[in-house]
Amino acid sequence: MNILEIIAKKRDNKTLSKEEIDFFIEQYCNGNITDYQAAALIMAIYINGMNEEETTNLTMSMAHSGEMLDLSVFGKNVVDKHSTGGVGDKITLILMPIIASLGIPVAKMSGRGLGFTGGTIDKLESIPGYNTSVEIDEFIQNVKNIGISVIGQTMNLAPADKKIYALRDTIACTDSIPLIASSIMSKKIAAGANKIILDVTCGSGAFMQNKEDAVKLSETMNKIGKLSNRETICVITNMDEPLGYAVGNNIEVIEAIKALKGDMPEDVKEVILELGAYMIKLAGLGDNIEENKNKILEKIENKEAYQKLIQLVENQGGDISYIENTEKFPKAKFKIPVISDKDGFVESLNARKVGEISGALGAGRLRKEDKIDQSVGVMLCKKISDRVEVGETLAYVYANNEELGNKASKNLKETYKIANNVVPKPKMILDIVK
Amino acid sequence: MNILEIIAKKRDNKTLSKEEIDFFIEQYCNGNITDYQAAALIMAIYINGMNEEETTNLTMSMAHSGEMLDLSVFGKNVVDKHSTGGVGDKITLILMPIIASLGIPVAKMSGRGLGFTGGTIDKLESIPGYNTSVEIDEFIQNVKNIGISVIGQTMNLAPADKKIYALRDTIACTDSIPLIASSIMSKKIAAGANKIILDVTCGSGAFMQNKEDAVKLSETMNKIGKLSNRETICVITNMDEPLGYAVGNNIEVIEAIKALKGDMPEDVKEVILELGAYMIKLAGLGDNIEENKNKILEKIENKEAYQKLIQLVENQGGDISYIENTEKFPKAKFKIPVISDKDGFVESLNARKVGEISGALGAGRLRKEDKIDQSVGVMLCKKISDRVEVGETLAYVYANNEELGNKASKNLKETYKIANNVVPKPKMILDIVK
Repeated sequence: MNILEIIAKKRDNKTLSKEEIDFFIEQYCNGNITDYQAAALIMAIYINGMNEEETTNLTMSMAHSGEMLDLSVFGKNVVDKHSTGGVGDKITLILMPIIASLGIPVAKMSGRGLGFTGGTIDKLESIPGYNTSVEIDEFIQNVKNIGISVIGQTMNLAPADKKIYALRDTIACTDSIPLIASSIMSKKIAAGANKIILDVTCGSGAFMQNKEDAVKLSETMNKIGKLSNRETICVITNMDEPLGYAVGNNIEVIEAIKALKGDMPEDVKEVILELGAYMIKLAGLGDNIEENKNKILEKIENKEAYQKLIQLVENQGGDISYIENTEKFPKAKFKIPVISDKDGFVESLNARKVGEISGALGAGRLRKEDKIDQSVGVMLCKKISDRVEVGETLAYVYANNEELGNKASKNLKETYKIANNVVPKPKMILDIVK
Repeated sequence: MNILEIIAKKRDNKTLSKEEIDFFIEQYCNGNITDYQAAALIMAIYINGMNEEETTNLTMSMAHSGEMLDLSVFGKNVVDKHSTGGVGDKITLILMPIIASLGIPVAKMSGRGLGFTGGTIDKLESIPGYNTSVEIDEFIQNVKNIGISVIGQTMNLAPADKKIYALRDTIACTDSIPLIASSIMSKKIAAGANKIILDVTCGSGAFMQNKEDAVKLSETMNKIGKLSNRETICVITNMDEPLGYAVGNNIEVIEAIKALKGDMPEDVKEVILELGAYMIKLAGLGDNIEENKNKILEKIENKEAYQKLIQLVENQGGDISYIENTEKFPKAKFKIPVISDKDGFVESLNARKVGEISGALGAGRLRKEDKIDQSVGVMLCKKISDRVEVGETLAYVYANNEELGNKASKNLKETYKIANNVVPKPKMILDIVK
């Protein structure tokens, strides 16, 4: 076997065998296959595609390229949740304590934000003291003790995926369904869960811009799940406008805390209930989705989910007084209102643009090594379908630099499209792909 | 303009503009575009192809990436000749003195052999004293003085092609018609001729394995010629078995010298007459191909072509006593006959295999830095359609190592396929693409 034969095969639109894919991943990771050979192969995969078996083999090969987390101590129904990324996406922060409060073990490794999307770990770190990089033994022990731990990726999970992901970025090969699917699933499989719920975001603020692509990606990931013995369900959610009202870091944490205290934005609630209900189902605790949703609502209402968050933060070394009193979180120096000069109804609010505006304020990073400003961001007041009048506040920009803040305010105003006629509330759940 | 946009465009099977191609070539040569980005683009070009305009733009961009030889001092009809490579291909050695003897200036830069194919420069260097690396001024002066000079590529011609060619080799992207066509034509255009005759070899010993591909390559190169104002004619020649009888270095030179003395193998003569007749036409000295062939035969018969070879060798510092008496060329230590154990007719004699056998004896090189053994090789006695009897000699192996020689003899015997029935003489000229 040699890399030239493997490249030529995919170049000619033939199917790669498991052995050929394993050879590529192994030899690329150990440096025997060069970046330019990998680039040629990746481009051939991009153009000619991969069938489900090839995609699964690539996934498993990448999953096994590094450490594999073993969660079997928690039984056969360990459920992991992953989102394909979005703007204002604080679902993990809210959903994980709910799930843990239902007695389902939550051993979650989350990522950091890059580009216009935020990351759960960046957000958690705005809670003073919260340690996102605990050792694996302690992580497992935390889950044993209180049923939940959420940390950063401290293990060397799927290093082949990291290498290929970085390469894809430089050769215009990011938006390929087999490559996205194998990238996501390899990390999830290495992270140890045997049941996986995927929040496949769809719209202006997501990688998948239309439902057709989102369904295709979902079907591919489900098939990988099936072939690799990990039951997988995909919930396709709307990401045309940001999720909830807060877009940033500590302001999203505050929104998440308030949600667990009972004050949850409608769109967030729809997504939480749907994802959560299917997680309960995957955990083997109930097949009736509507009943499962009620179980979730109950855990919010009786504050058990909120108590679980307190427990989580305390256990990770975080200062729970910030949770109990969100006024303690540091505030940005400038709070600049965005005022409407039109009457009408919000027609669109491009999530990606809002993400970029928030990122430009310092809430996001363009390169991995960039630092994040925890208190800046955007607080929306009006969302799609909301009625607005001239002079009303559409949103607030939270900035630590006035010039950046004013620029953000101007850009945000342009992002709001106001229509004369009534605009319906967007549907949050676009499809369930099982 | 940036490389990601350019890669994405070709990835999506769109047409690249002249500016985009120029940007790629320039930035790749100066190191701003990495090898892996170039590899991704080359793979996308391989799979999605390039139209004639793109291929021409790529050709011109590569041609202008280094020095450009100016041959305008020799007028408007400077004709260059190039072969796409073969086994036993000594056409340049014979044809160039003929052309020069007709008063057409010959200012030719030739290449070295690589893999199973030989190179004119390696062959010329078996003449003691022949200097293949003279300075350009002297090269031009030689052509002015005696009408001919044949040297190696002393100028930095089309360095972008060199870089891309080397990359293609490592990423399974060699056999792409737009890439082959632009590679050949960029070097020819940089080498200064404004009329180009291309010997497009076709068959087991050539890059083009079938006539269909050879025609496609020819049409592409003609189109590049037309769009870049270089009149180009392609002669598709048969390369299923080696050309002539000698395959090696000094034994090919000896065969070429003998050909100019009047003893020319029939297949070689067919190719010489056809290519030569079209070169005369391109030089503007006669449109009648049959008449042109007669002019060539006359120059061989009256020994003017042979005298031109003597003049060329003398002028380049070579020892002409070797030309006058070819017995002076050093001989290999071992001359091992290959004896037939069958009666019948030679049905096939795979040119590529013969080239590899000769190469394994030391006549060729696998890597650029390998040294060549001038005296070893294969001398065929029987060629396709020849009648053979048990005990007759099919060929001789010339070796400087007995073990290698015996192995070559065994391999060569296996390469000869003997049929019971009469086999027709192969046609040498498969097509003329104008």
